[in-house]
Amino acid sequence: MNMTKGIRYGLAGLAAAGALTAGPAFGQEAEAASTGASPEVQYIFNTLLFLIGGFLVMWMAAGFAMLEAGLVRSKNVSMQSLKNIALYSIAGIMYWLVGYNLMYSGVDGGFIGSLGTYAFDPVGGDALDTGYSTASDWFFQMVFVATAASIVSGTVAERMKLWPFLIFVVVLTGFIYPIAGSWQWGGGWLSEMGFSDFAGSTLVHSVGGWAALAGAILLGARAGKYEDGKINPMPGSSIPLATLGTFILWLGWFGFNGASQLAMGTISDVTDISRIFANTNIAAAAGVVTTVILLQILYKKVDVTMVLNGALAGLVSITAEPLAPAVWQAILIGAVGGAIVVFTVPLLDKLKIDDVVGAIPVHLFAGIWGTLIVPFSNADTSYGVQLVGVIAYGVFTLVCAFIVWFILKAIMGIRCTPEEESMGLDKAEIGVEAYPEFSRG
Amino acid sequence: MNMTKGIRYGLAGLAAAGALTAGPAFGQEAEAASTGASPEVQYIFNTLLFLIGGFLVMWMAAGFAMLEAGLVRSKNVSMQSLKNIALYSIAGIMYWLVGYNLMYSGVDGGFIGSLGTYAFDPVGGDALDTGYSTASDWFFQMVFVATAASIVSGTVAERMKLWPFLIFVVVLTGFIYPIAGSWQWGGGWLSEMGFSDFAGSTLVHSVGGWAALAGAILLGARAGKYEDGKINPMPGSSIPLATLGTFILWLGWFGFNGASQLAMGTISDVTDISRIFANTNIAAAAGVVTTVILLQILYKKVDVTMVLNGALAGLVSITAEPLAPAVWQAILIGAVGGAIVVFTVPLLDKLKIDDVVGAIPVHLFAGIWGTLIVPFSNADTSYGVQLVGVIAYGVFTLVCAFIVWFILKAIMGIRCTPEEESMGLDKAEIGVEAYPEFSRG
Amino acid sequence: MNMTKGIRYGLAGLAAAGALTAGPAFGQEAEAASTGASPEVQYIFNTLLFLIGGFLVMWMAAGFAMLEAGLVRSKNVSMQSLKNIALYSIAGIMYWLVGYNLMYSGVDGGFIGSLGTYAFDPVGGDALDTGYSTASDWFFQMVFVATAASIVSGTVAERMKLWPFLIFVVVLTGFIYPIAGSWQWGGGWLSEMGFSDFAGSTLVHSVGGWAALAGAILLGARAGKYEDGKINPMPGSSIPLATLGTFILWLGWFGFNGASQLAMGTISDVTDISRIFANTNIAAAAGVVTTVILLQILYKKVDVTMVLNGALAGLVSITAEPLAPAVWQAILIGAVGGAIVVFTVPLLDKLKIDDVVGAIPVHLFAGIWGTLIVPFSNADTSYGVQLVGVIAYGVFTLVCAFIVWFILKAIMGIRCTPEEESMGLDKAEIGVEAYPEFSRG
Repeated sequence: MNMTKGIRYGLAGLAAAGALTAGPAFGQEAEAASTGASPEVQYIFNTLLFLIGGFLVMWMAAGFAMLEAGLVRSKNVSMQSLKNIALYSIAGIMYWLVGYNLMYSGVDGGFIGSLGTYAFDPVGGDALDTGYSTASDWFFQMVFVATAASIVSGTVAERMKLWPFLIFVVVLTGFIYPIAGSWQWGGGWLSEMGFSDFAGSTLVHSVGGWAALAGAILLGARAGKYEDGKINPMPGSSIPLATLGTFILWLGWFGFNGASQLAMGTISDVTDISRIFANTNIAAAAGVVTTVILLQILYKKVDVTMVLNGALAGLVSITAEPLAPAVWQAILIGAVGGAIVVFTVPLLDKLKIDDVVGAIPVHLFAGIWGTLIVPFSNADTSYGVQLVGVIAYGVFTLVCAFIVWFILKAIMGIRCTPEEESMGLDKAEIGVEAYPEFSRG
Repeated sequence: MNMTKGIRYGLAGLAAAGALTAGPAFGQEAEAASTGASPEVQYIFNTLLFLIGGFLVMWMAAGFAMLEAGLVRSKNVSMQSLKNIALYSIAGIMYWLVGYNLMYSGVDGGFIGSLGTYAFDPVGGDALDTGYSTASDWFFQMVFVATAASIVSGTVAERMKLWPFLIFVVVLTGFIYPIAGSWQWGGGWLSEMGFSDFAGSTLVHSVGGWAALAGAILLGARAGKYEDGKINPMPGSSIPLATLGTFILWLGWFGFNGASQLAMGTISDVTDISRIFANTNIAAAAGVVTTVILLQILYKKVDVTMVLNGALAGLVSITAEPLAPAVWQAILIGAVGGAIVVFTVPLLDKLKIDDVVGAIPVHLFAGIWGTLIVPFSNADTSYGVQLVGVIAYGVFTLVCAFIVWFILKAIMGIRCTPEEESMGLDKAEIGVEAYPEFSRG
Repeated sequence: MNMTKGIRYGLAGLAAAGALTAGPAFGQEAEAASTGASPEVQYIFNTLLFLIGGFLVMWMAAGFAMLEAGLVRSKNVSMQSLKNIALYSIAGIMYWLVGYNLMYSGVDGGFIGSLGTYAFDPVGGDALDTGYSTASDWFFQMVFVATAASIVSGTVAERMKLWPFLIFVVVLTGFIYPIAGSWQWGGGWLSEMGFSDFAGSTLVHSVGGWAALAGAILLGARAGKYEDGKINPMPGSSIPLATLGTFILWLGWFGFNGASQLAMGTISDVTDISRIFANTNIAAAAGVVTTVILLQILYKKVDVTMVLNGALAGLVSITAEPLAPAVWQAILIGAVGGAIVVFTVPLLDKLKIDDVVGAIPVHLFAGIWGTLIVPFSNADTSYGVQLVGVIAYGVFTLVCAFIVWFILKAIMGIRCTPEEESMGLDKAEIGVEAYPEFSRG
């Protein structure tokens, strides 16, 4: 049986799972519903879903790039652009080289898959039994890995050197994320226990967030961020680019959550995808509205960067279970996500954890929230098991990330020099300024 | 019978309508064309069309945000970004809360639907009779509402306060737009009269334009815009962002017009969608070429912001009937749209109506043009009825919008203080500058 | 038999070709695979592929606009924005007016098609025999023409006047590209000889590149670019916009290569599209990683603009054959593409050919590489024939482009005055500055 995220079906108890079962089941399906889509047509629809979902999630790489380019100071924008396109590229190669098989091949209720590169269907391939093209599945899973890596780059911006960051991405996308992912989507121990994370509040967003947290702690805050007991704001260089990035991410999220249904060849599946689209959108909307209202009440000014993060937190919150909630539940889940941003961004500053773009509140805290609240709408899950999953992913990712960051720090250093930080990473490591003609105010 | 925009089918005399009729019709359809797509496959295609069309139109929210962020001065860019993401969010919630049902439920030839939130298909839903997933339909209709609201924000930029704007959006997206929409797409009185507006030149663009016009009149011009009988240009802060916004809108328009075919489960339907794609694109192209030539002749300089609006005017013009025109007709319709921009932007300035981004010429004037010219290519319509529709929407929306703006003005004021306007709304209400590091020239 | 790019099928030896053959073949197909998709469903899938692929490639027009807006100096950004939206519009009109038929109608092994505008399917069209909607095919082919024109605008930026550029685009998109295209995709002499270019490394990218090269040579370098034996860098105005443009192009390339499969109605076809997605992505990733490593080794600084071009060169390189390569081959092909950028950008500067955005290395040199390396993975092709094709396209396009540029130079001049160049084309010809509020550093 194909295990690619297929385990979700069992957990969610969806009748649609038939579309993903192997050969013989297709015949039964066809018999049971003789007027339905043929196995061939189902295969095409399922593959098309992965392709559309895949290019939408690929587009999120651009979203993170723009969000982060907008939220760092202009002297580090070229670096942030480079890190984002490089991490997406590394993720693509590593996930072919080792990641996919570590995550999905032969996990069998355990803790890790097997080593080996991933093999696609041959040219003109016509094997029906998987129910979709294996290359389309690989493509869709690969863009998820890139998302996890994108989360890290924002937090550690403006003082992390290029090469240790890229090496960390190699380890994260080739090993940490795939091994962690195998526990659930690969059919490992957590999936057997009944943990549920539909599209990755924990597997993608929290994993990225924990890795970012470890990096931020080891790296320390930017020079001058916390001085004399004060928190010095270091405003981002371009709000419209940050806004654009948020809209890109929102758009990409329809692929992220929608295509995580993993099948579109039956009316049940496509109906579920439609619910997911609507719930995903309304949770983000609730995140926005909540932050706007809270900011007005608390600060009398509506800090737009907080609102953008509110949208993202709404999206992250609904990602663990975008299908089951009724609309009012989706609104509530997203609204709490938005509130988490408003209340935890200052908290991190109090702890002197310098998260440049606010990725930890958005991806880690809202990811935890979204995962824990799954049983609120999905009766097949339990709060206890959800908590076990959250803790397991937290401990594993934190420990692994700390070790990798620590080794990198010991061997090559992870932080630029104070002089480089002051002049900006663009001049120091890229040699190309982001806005060479615009003088600083 | 399902009424969601279904009325268009009757008017356009399309054979494809079968795909949207209820239960029993499916059987007949299947009998009539036994080698065609099964009802299940049609359902999947129709739903997929709504989902793809929906995410493309959702993306238009980003287009408006970038267009407007590029066309306002830098001191108001954060505000414009915030207004755009907030209005999209509000639209999503209001259209679920009341809008959809006011527009589509129980209109029956009348003037308004019924109150109530909208209910999606259940998880794993497999009811074939609608011909598509109800949540996908809701999603697709919802993004249209947001478009109407986006039009307003551009016109009233740079001096409208945040909160009265957001409250107006609540009313517009929850009540004004849905009630107006019910007259035609909800199967109300105008649809029974034979009015035709395929994808919303009037229902979306003119409605947004009328609401914007009312706001601009009540609000007054920006300080210094019209002084001593002179018109002072207030150039936008970023032409590339405005260009990006235009390209985003152009891309999104393929969903806007193409998916308004409402069905993709027959070869007739998908062939029509293809015609719509081609016509939509070529009308926009004609708008661009026309403005480029006119500007060169009239001014010897080709103002790129006018050209961008020319593209959008071409798109708005073809939106009332993107299917029926032959290519040369589509070119003509779009070209006139472009010309409208060139000639009416100065006209508004003469009337001292301060439309910051040129939304009224693009969405209102070109929307009227597109609606009135429908009978040129669609023999099932009449110029007289088209005019009745244009006037009805104009009167209703103008009156409603004036009342709402007027109440907001009386209660809380809609315009910022002269001091706030001078320092910019970003500092006044957001607390975050869009480009904090770039000094003003 | 329908010839639209159909010739590729014969060359690639794909079993899937059946989906594109005319009427009677459908019956046979249906008989041969009775459980497969019906001809109607295949028609819908094929058309949907063109529509999705088409809007993705249309989006590349925005990518070129952002890439070029980011890589020119701020005084020419409005002009670059205008040229890009205008060229896309002109391409759309010219390709309907003459281009499509010149390329695809009645080529029959020869050198050119026939004159005449292109006719779409009628409204409600239900003719099955083409296997897809003709308007969807036109739309998909049209956006390719625009890509070729976009390549030119980047190279000749910052000193080419608006009108000669637009007139060149008229000729390129209406005549040069379609005639050249007819030789291969139109079923002309090169296709009969066995040349292979799956999605246009040569037909689109090299053709654009050769035309750009001719323009750059006739136009001369920007004032001050090469002085006293030194190469003066003229850094672009916005790295994040250039990054955004690259991500947009990357996204669009899934449509460019994926939908060039031309059919999605069988599991073989959709499986091949999946392979194409994965290979396209990994070739770009390899281009990125290669440039990052090479730049670090050679220069100790990782110039992000080179990396962006490395991504694009990886994409161009895989475009001639994105289906056949194994993953490791795709990585190798893309990596060499990236290396080409690193080594040939300085080479052009030594030759004093001023290519503002690096389009010639990316689109011409990597395009040649990608075309020549096809037999490495596709056994049905030969290096000799590939070389013939590369030379034929080079000679034809260079000669045609030189003639057109030369005539334009003689009649109206193609270069702005030194004063205009110094003040910037935005002030000189557009009258709208791109960033009026940001002072130059």
